[in-house]
Amino acid sequence: MVSITDIREQTVSIASPMRNAVIDFSKMTISAVVVETDLTRDGKAIKGYGFTSNGRYGQSGILRERMIPRLLGARDVASEDGCNLDPFKCWQAMMANEKPGGHGERSVAVGAIDMALWDLVAKIDEKPLYQVLAERYSQGRSNPFVKVYAAGGYYYPDSAHHLLETEMRAYLDMGFREVKMKIGGASLDEDRVRIERVLNVVGDGNRLAVDANARFDVHTAVAYAEAIAEYDLRWYEEPVGVLDFEALKEVRLASRTPIATGENLFSCEDSLNLVRYGGLDASVDYLQMDPALSYGLVEYLRILQMLGTNGWAAGRCVPHGGHQFGLHLAAGLGLFGNEAYPGVFEPFGRFASEMRLEDGLVKLADAPGIGYEAVPEIYAVLTGV
Amino acid sequence: MVSITDIREQTVSIASPMRNAVIDFSKMTISAVVVETDLTRDGKAIKGYGFTSNGRYGQSGILRERMIPRLLGARDVASEDGCNLDPFKCWQAMMANEKPGGHGERSVAVGAIDMALWDLVAKIDEKPLYQVLAERYSQGRSNPFVKVYAAGGYYYPDSAHHLLETEMRAYLDMGFREVKMKIGGASLDEDRVRIERVLNVVGDGNRLAVDANARFDVHTAVAYAEAIAEYDLRWYEEPVGVLDFEALKEVRLASRTPIATGENLFSCEDSLNLVRYGGLDASVDYLQMDPALSYGLVEYLRILQMLGTNGWAAGRCVPHGGHQFGLHLAAGLGLFGNEAYPGVFEPFGRFASEMRLEDGLVKLADAPGIGYEAVPEIYAVLTGV
Repeated sequence: MVSITDIREQTVSIASPMRNAVIDFSKMTISAVVVETDLTRDGKAIKGYGFTSNGRYGQSGILRERMIPRLLGARDVASEDGCNLDPFKCWQAMMANEKPGGHGERSVAVGAIDMALWDLVAKIDEKPLYQVLAERYSQGRSNPFVKVYAAGGYYYPDSAHHLLETEMRAYLDMGFREVKMKIGGASLDEDRVRIERVLNVVGDGNRLAVDANARFDVHTAVAYAEAIAEYDLRWYEEPVGVLDFEALKEVRLASRTPIATGENLFSCEDSLNLVRYGGLDASVDYLQMDPALSYGLVEYLRILQMLGTNGWAAGRCVPHGGHQFGLHLAAGLGLFGNEAYPGVFEPFGRFASEMRLEDGLVKLADAPGIGYEAVPEIYAVLTGV
Repeated sequence: MVSITDIREQTVSIASPMRNAVIDFSKMTISAVVVETDLTRDGKAIKGYGFTSNGRYGQSGILRERMIPRLLGARDVASEDGCNLDPFKCWQAMMANEKPGGHGERSVAVGAIDMALWDLVAKIDEKPLYQVLAERYSQGRSNPFVKVYAAGGYYYPDSAHHLLETEMRAYLDMGFREVKMKIGGASLDEDRVRIERVLNVVGDGNRLAVDANARFDVHTAVAYAEAIAEYDLRWYEEPVGVLDFEALKEVRLASRTPIATGENLFSCEDSLNLVRYGGLDASVDYLQMDPALSYGLVEYLRILQMLGTNGWAAGRCVPHGGHQFGLHLAAGLGLFGNEAYPGVFEPFGRFASEMRLEDGLVKLADAPGIGYEAVPEIYAVLTGV
């Protein structure tokens, strides 16, 4: 029966010079996690790798004091046939003696270990993770070509809009077809200028999404909704406070642009409240919960099931985070696509260079697991944990 | 201008042998925090003490990596006249570069430092904290006699109901008039027997509250609501999932017993959703948000203001946590009362022995600050941090 023999974690800087409408990322960290079992391949322990996405900092304390000792102390974490790990049993072990509610931070710590566990599960199965997921949860249907968009468009000093254009042109040159930019860090008038500059580069409204990072009050959010309606943008992201569903409902009513939100909700319970109260439209809006920040894929599967019973298809989901783990979920579970952060959150925002980006699609590789071994800059950090 | 010179934290066990319907407390910890300024009294630095209430574990990582360095690095944390600290400025400094949402863990770390800051504020003012709060936020009105109830009534091995009776009798002997017991860890029939045994001891339904710790599904919660209606209990606590406001609304409709909830909501935003969606009745129900777990008193003041604009009086609030900090808030801000945990979460569940408990009321002492110096078992731990 497979057992877990070691779990290590290390806090790693992903400091980035940009800032969005709310925070700067100059001190941003993640926790990188390595999980080992008693299984070997070619004489070496098979290792699973995970990390805490981005934006919510490393979680050394919760990992060291609660999640790692509980998982190492669990009696049975094996699949029914004993030949692989069962991430659901691992999840139960990690969450033992945790009170309900308060979904944040803890969800990030669990998510990092969960990512490493699924990496292991797929490696033990000798398949890429997306294929494992498709077989288990999508009747075998998978699509290794994942739609990605480039999240960037931060503010430049002195309103240097030509730098914003240069940034967006660079994304198109890389093979992206869709991009996202920040709004709300300047006046509405200046943001309109910025949006129009970017539209000149990308050519079409549905190739551009805008992101307010939950900064606006209802009044401002509605004013922006009205102002951007003419551009026919892909989506209008996080217009208002992430838990203020009444405000979201008001903005939704006023917005001709699809709404996207959810990256700062970290549980199935919080996601349910979003779809219950937020007034969103399951035929046009997007949900962006990040599995790595939200108790991992085990909880994300619960979220997808909950969404299904509330009329939301997996195809409306575009996870936050820009990690290769998200690509596998998109490919194996039929999600709309995945975020990408070219050049920021280095190196953890990178995808493997063998996974070519063409016409806005990334093709997943066939290596077993998630494939961080094929991203030298990430693998160098992970092997040091 | 007062400045903060040192902040130290230490993880301390508050292991307790009992379990509620959901978790056991045998590995429960807190973070104890000491904050020092450049002010001295009698040649010694004035120290502020805080800790993380109970139930959500210590927060070493978030304290060491984020909150403490940010607060130590803040340029200006002084009140307008420069003679005291400004906990609101401190709060802004600690929460810099934190993304919105995800209210848990981080809220606990901030709450522990916030508690120490208010202890300092009151000591610098040379007044007990409740008096400072009354002067600042309650037009000077305070009541040093705080209504407390004894939270206990856990499950005993082998359904030894006589031990439950013995426990409750001991609370009455200590001076308590009201008690709380757990339900949901046994069948409804057995819980009825337990409730009736306790009623025989305390004599009257409004002296007994029951707590399900968010364990029930709606169906079971409603069945319990109907079964306990005849006892006219003080309240029925956390019947269902803490974020499932639709389920709560159903139970509320079915319950003749007042509902109490909120101890597992850790922000003003989450509390607003409870009063918006939970169907609670501001004339009979109780709210139990724990300031020490919810970003501290700075956020709790926001919660009280939000409650006021939604028709809820401070007098409907009974904070979770059983800490002396909660007593000061109750006395200075006009809350209904405070929880107490005689004999559990030792030593942090203790109040100062000079604060006599008579007829269900604790009288706050006149020492400056919160007064942990007068609780030898707590002070011994805090001076070691």
